[in-house]
Amino acid sequence: MKTFYSPAHLEHDPQVQFEAGQLLPAVEVPMRAETVRVAIEEHKLGPILPPTPFSDEHILAVHDAGLVSFLGVAWHDWTERYGKNAPVAIPSAWPAKGLPEKRKGDIEARLGTYAFSADAPIMGGTWPAAREAVNVALSAAEVIRQGEKSAFALTRPPGHHAASDVFGGFCYLNNAAIAAQYLIKAGIRPAVLDVDYHHGNGTQSIFYQRSDVFFCSIHADPNFAYPHFLGFADERGEGDGEGYNLNMPLPNGTDWERYDESMKFAMGAIKHMGPDVLILSMGLDTYIEDPIAGFRLKCDDYLKMGQRIASLGKPVLFMFEGGYCFGALGQLAVNVLEGFHNA
Amino acid sequence: MKTFYSPAHLEHDPQVQFEAGQLLPAVEVPMRAETVRVAIEEHKLGPILPPTPFSDEHILAVHDAGLVSFLGVAWHDWTERYGKNAPVAIPSAWPAKGLPEKRKGDIEARLGTYAFSADAPIMGGTWPAAREAVNVALSAAEVIRQGEKSAFALTRPPGHHAASDVFGGFCYLNNAAIAAQYLIKAGIRPAVLDVDYHHGNGTQSIFYQRSDVFFCSIHADPNFAYPHFLGFADERGEGDGEGYNLNMPLPNGTDWERYDESMKFAMGAIKHMGPDVLILSMGLDTYIEDPIAGFRLKCDDYLKMGQRIASLGKPVLFMFEGGYCFGALGQLAVNVLEGFHNA
Repeated sequence: MKTFYSPAHLEHDPQVQFEAGQLLPAVEVPMRAETVRVAIEEHKLGPILPPTPFSDEHILAVHDAGLVSFLGVAWHDWTERYGKNAPVAIPSAWPAKGLPEKRKGDIEARLGTYAFSADAPIMGGTWPAAREAVNVALSAAEVIRQGEKSAFALTRPPGHHAASDVFGGFCYLNNAAIAAQYLIKAGIRPAVLDVDYHHGNGTQSIFYQRSDVFFCSIHADPNFAYPHFLGFADERGEGDGEGYNLNMPLPNGTDWERYDESMKFAMGAIKHMGPDVLILSMGLDTYIEDPIAGFRLKCDDYLKMGQRIASLGKPVLFMFEGGYCFGALGQLAVNVLEGFHNA
Repeated sequence: MKTFYSPAHLEHDPQVQFEAGQLLPAVEVPMRAETVRVAIEEHKLGPILPPTPFSDEHILAVHDAGLVSFLGVAWHDWTERYGKNAPVAIPSAWPAKGLPEKRKGDIEARLGTYAFSADAPIMGGTWPAAREAVNVALSAAEVIRQGEKSAFALTRPPGHHAASDVFGGFCYLNNAAIAAQYLIKAGIRPAVLDVDYHHGNGTQSIFYQRSDVFFCSIHADPNFAYPHFLGFADERGEGDGEGYNLNMPLPNGTDWERYDESMKFAMGAIKHMGPDVLILSMGLDTYIEDPIAGFRLKCDDYLKMGQRIASLGKPVLFMFEGGYCFGALGQLAVNVLEGFHNA
């Protein structure tokens, strides 16, 4: 299996994130992807390749042009306002009801307009990293298009919270959605299964009115968990997309036994939809030791997760999303991949 | 002149505010109102009286019931989630476009739904202080109703950024709008002049479609200044309210000479509207030494501001809003009031 990876992510290292009334040390850190990369090498899971460049057209096929150009200039405009030594850019005001969006003018207004949360800081390395993660995702999608059974896009920053015209939740561009759209354009029909602890609100919203991508997510109930506003079981798609969105929110404390019931249900639903390939938004924060999440999957459970995914009998594009237990993250990723390949 | 004041504001002391990517020491602090209270005493501007209680109906006449009940339970629900020693409540995710509002459930979702910025932290003393500030505002409105020429509501927290169903910008309940509505109910037609450095987006939006309250604001251009999303010159009211909203954004560096041109224009416009009384949203952050603002009004200019307001020949309800130069704040307030009374 080919893994695609770029060191560009190392320069996206905002150090902090704002949540629960505090500026806390960041959990979405470079070490996450590095740990996984090293584990892939150690377990000899195949070559780790640099991505090839892909044009912006693939990004603009799912993202609003205003968001994309904003992300490209945000740090420049932020430091122009707050100085070269400014802290990372985090919005502090946003266009709530009654306040119009401002896609032009003031950096604070644009930042608040294009963000939905305060946990996706922007620094100098953010745009180059997010842009290169798209190349990583598309390079992996391309080998799937060429007929390989699997590929691993070691994307960082992650992408599944980023919607067409709004970013947040450690995510800037939606790597999984961009890869899905790329495959569709190549005549290949993908489904997306999102197993991150947090609902993939961005991916859901991008395909919510479309029938060409079945989106299925198993995640912590947004009644208590981030992203709070989306991910409820009654969100089933709209218009042409009705029935093409499946959310399976689960309670905190969910262990593998319970999780696997949802996995089996998801596999059945995906099989029923008959996609050509599966894109797995592979969050690993369902792990029992994850510091910001509340599920109870154990290390070996990720082998079983890989086996379940293999039961689909389709090529799989593994896309790295969340997961914050640095000490185990490499092993968890390897287990999913080995579980899949050895099934 | 009667001043109304309550010590309830002392318990609203969140210590911090989030802006420009940082948790900074709060500038909207109890000392602000205390400094003004002491200056009123020292200058013997009349009695300082406790407010009388007014029922919630006056709040609900301008505010969404969901916002009001949320503010009442927010700290309880926040500490239930994050513990008794939780930091002050500040939203970190909000329902940007594509994300539905959540007025029920998760405290994080409700906090993000009801706030438009990260600079109005909620702590245990916040709701009692905001609720009592309404009593202060209405007690002052009541003596105006009874025929006095002036009254001073020493309201803290301030109110002019709070809209019907969304709070932010150090503001929770809109004291000026609640007082205006109270006067209307008593058959008295008010106009609101907002001289805070920051546009009074909350007051504007509450009356934007109504012709019974003329709202006029002189403030820093939202192309660079908070609240970023509203306060532009082309916002003139809508429907019945068309022509009843007048914004006069000014550039940074504005001094009294330039400011007074807008004051004279505002006085002309207000005279033309023929209100029975004026409510002055008296922000004092136009002062040259204000630490968070960029105008250049000097201490004596506030005497001239008071004189200008007196030229209207109408009773005036002075309502305390912003102003963060603690060392001068008392003198600035006294100057407006003495300028008015000695004109």
